[in-house]
Amino acid sequence: MSVKFAVLGHGVVGSGVVELFYKNKESIEKKAGTEMEVKYILDLREFPDSPYADKFTKDFNDILNDDEVTAVAECMGGLEPAFTFVKACLEKGKSVSTSNKELVAEKGDILLKIAKEKNCNFFFEASVGGAIPIIRPLHKCLAGNDITECAGILNGTTNFILTKMYNDNMPFDEALSLAQQLGYAEKDPTADIEGHDACRKICIISSLVFGKHVYPKSVYTKGISGIDLADVQIADNMGYSIKLIASVKKQENDKILPAVMPMLTPHADIISNVSDVFNAVVVNGDGFDKAMFYGRGAGKLPTASAVLGDVIDSVKHKVTVFSQSWESAEDDSFIDCIDNFKAKWYFRVPADAQVSAKEQTASDNGISFISESELTFAQAQAEAEKLGAMAVIPVLE
Amino acid sequence: MSVKFAVLGHGVVGSGVVELFYKNKESIEKKAGTEMEVKYILDLREFPDSPYADKFTKDFNDILNDDEVTAVAECMGGLEPAFTFVKACLEKGKSVSTSNKELVAEKGDILLKIAKEKNCNFFFEASVGGAIPIIRPLHKCLAGNDITECAGILNGTTNFILTKMYNDNMPFDEALSLAQQLGYAEKDPTADIEGHDACRKICIISSLVFGKHVYPKSVYTKGISGIDLADVQIADNMGYSIKLIASVKKQENDKILPAVMPMLTPHADIISNVSDVFNAVVVNGDGFDKAMFYGRGAGKLPTASAVLGDVIDSVKHKVTVFSQSWESAEDDSFIDCIDNFKAKWYFRVPADAQVSAKEQTASDNGISFISESELTFAQAQAEAEKLGAMAVIPVLE
Repeated sequence: MSVKFAVLGHGVVGSGVVELFYKNKESIEKKAGTEMEVKYILDLREFPDSPYADKFTKDFNDILNDDEVTAVAECMGGLEPAFTFVKACLEKGKSVSTSNKELVAEKGDILLKIAKEKNCNFFFEASVGGAIPIIRPLHKCLAGNDITECAGILNGTTNFILTKMYNDNMPFDEALSLAQQLGYAEKDPTADIEGHDACRKICIISSLVFGKHVYPKSVYTKGISGIDLADVQIADNMGYSIKLIASVKKQENDKILPAVMPMLTPHADIISNVSDVFNAVVVNGDGFDKAMFYGRGAGKLPTASAVLGDVIDSVKHKVTVFSQSWESAEDDSFIDCIDNFKAKWYFRVPADAQVSAKEQTASDNGISFISESELTFAQAQAEAEKLGAMAVIPVLE
Repeated sequence: MSVKFAVLGHGVVGSGVVELFYKNKESIEKKAGTEMEVKYILDLREFPDSPYADKFTKDFNDILNDDEVTAVAECMGGLEPAFTFVKACLEKGKSVSTSNKELVAEKGDILLKIAKEKNCNFFFEASVGGAIPIIRPLHKCLAGNDITECAGILNGTTNFILTKMYNDNMPFDEALSLAQQLGYAEKDPTADIEGHDACRKICIISSLVFGKHVYPKSVYTKGISGIDLADVQIADNMGYSIKLIASVKKQENDKILPAVMPMLTPHADIISNVSDVFNAVVVNGDGFDKAMFYGRGAGKLPTASAVLGDVIDSVKHKVTVFSQSWESAEDDSFIDCIDNFKAKWYFRVPADAQVSAKEQTASDNGISFISESELTFAQAQAEAEKLGAMAVIPVLE
């Protein structure tokens, strides 16, 4: 008897899940150890010409009340009705695999708890880094380690824009327009360019690695809309690329500090070579030292690939609950204040500013230098104000 | 009650497993969902000053016949007695996690079959790419895809040597001596520099991805001892780095073609930026397109990290058999002949050779060029002979 699963949402990702599943059905069934079939596709729209037209339903209860459906792929996006639907599925013991980072970042703790109670799985590999395997590696392969830091390029749209600025000397606005033309950026690009999307992803990574739910509202988030082409060019001459980095670090005071900001990455560092829409996550820990995971962070089939991997895993091991879990956080007292964020900093200041740094780069756009020692976020902002800085950007170690 | 496990071998990796386990015991037990303890360490040598002196035994039967021991980490290396010991453990239903690439490359099919029959796990994340999570990602996260190609830098010693040649214009012999001084290369460096180590690892990846056991003897393997510093420098000027690449590709005739050889990798390609002792594996498939996994491919704690991740997984899910399995191969008719390997090729030929390529680089060392179209291995060798080539090296796409 074949295992039946349902796909919630027939947008970009949901249609990709169905497409990839039927393309590779034979090998997928071999890996899952059982025959599999998509029984329902939930969408309010009509798809009369779809080869799967007979599978569509507009009524979520068809799926919820069908005991034959033991696994569900949630690809609707947004908080509602995704949260209500996923919660209901888990409460019925149906395993859910989701690509919805907003859902996991805001409600992951609640959903993981229900899954545990109901002896089913809530998987979310697709919610961070699209196709990149990162959740399982962090949770399983690196389980023997004390993970101290994660830093990644977790948003493809901003990485594309920064790559265009870097490679082609294209100003920000022009690069954003091109990203929109190519379908890499939405008409309203706020969530991407202001860092909210990357923020949700670092919340999920932080929660998973450090065991307590980190909410987006607790994370300092700065996007790339303020990045001047001049700084991209000057940083390049100094041996750095500017990337939007989402990071989390275990602090000396035992708190954790998640943050999203543009940072300078040294050319010699492999993350500096992650270009275009590609994503990457660098992880540091005591045993393995440093590892990096790289791939496509978005797109129809890449994201579908991650959702399908989860669905296959939940079908194969339906009696096993994988404890990739974390606790709810009563407050955010375990999260350190951004003022304590420490790094060396890049400054660009007016040509007549009083600069003490030994190495300075002068250009038509002022004087640029990197602080000789680490400064806290608070110190860097104070210094920037004192010098009348046009740019102040931290450097990734 | 705590779960007891044993560590076979107290060399570099085995001692690392014990060290990392006790360092992170608390968080490991939380992840495993149970208390854990090392009950035995098997080694024929004496370690009277070890903090774990009471755990040592010289008699494998102490471990085999102790029903309390449900998981075993094999870190002895070599085929025997590792194979006999691992087989005996699996036959008793004890899950085994190994870092032993020779064992998995030569006997993986047999051991996986026994594990399946005895309802226990045979894990080998540490056998490929050291600390890099690659086995689980390939097997689980990317399970929805048709994987078409894997190519990696799977040997840290040779990558260190090539990096020294590239960065510091150091001739091969000098770079090898330095690697030996630093402990990156063995006194007898044959297994590393002639590609046998990388060969075992690509055998494991090929078996896992394509489902049939690939034996090292079926894989064309060429090391880096013939690489001339001149070619490293000329290739750099042409926009490439020379790397020892272990690869496997699904061919048009539905066979697979695994191979180990030095190859030119374009600077713009992220794998070209993998330096020093670091390893990386690039994977291509239909859904996710391209992913890369990067990290430390060897060393005490990095390899221990991977072994421990496996041990934790086998302790946590002791009733679940993970089917990261493959079949024995009756013959190697599913492996394509190296003569059919296709690529563009780099040639260096005498200054007076008749070269038709449009782009040529002349130097004191002759004329270098890259073939304008793809040539098979057989065609490239014939061309090299005709031109009296001093170097003929394929280019990684």
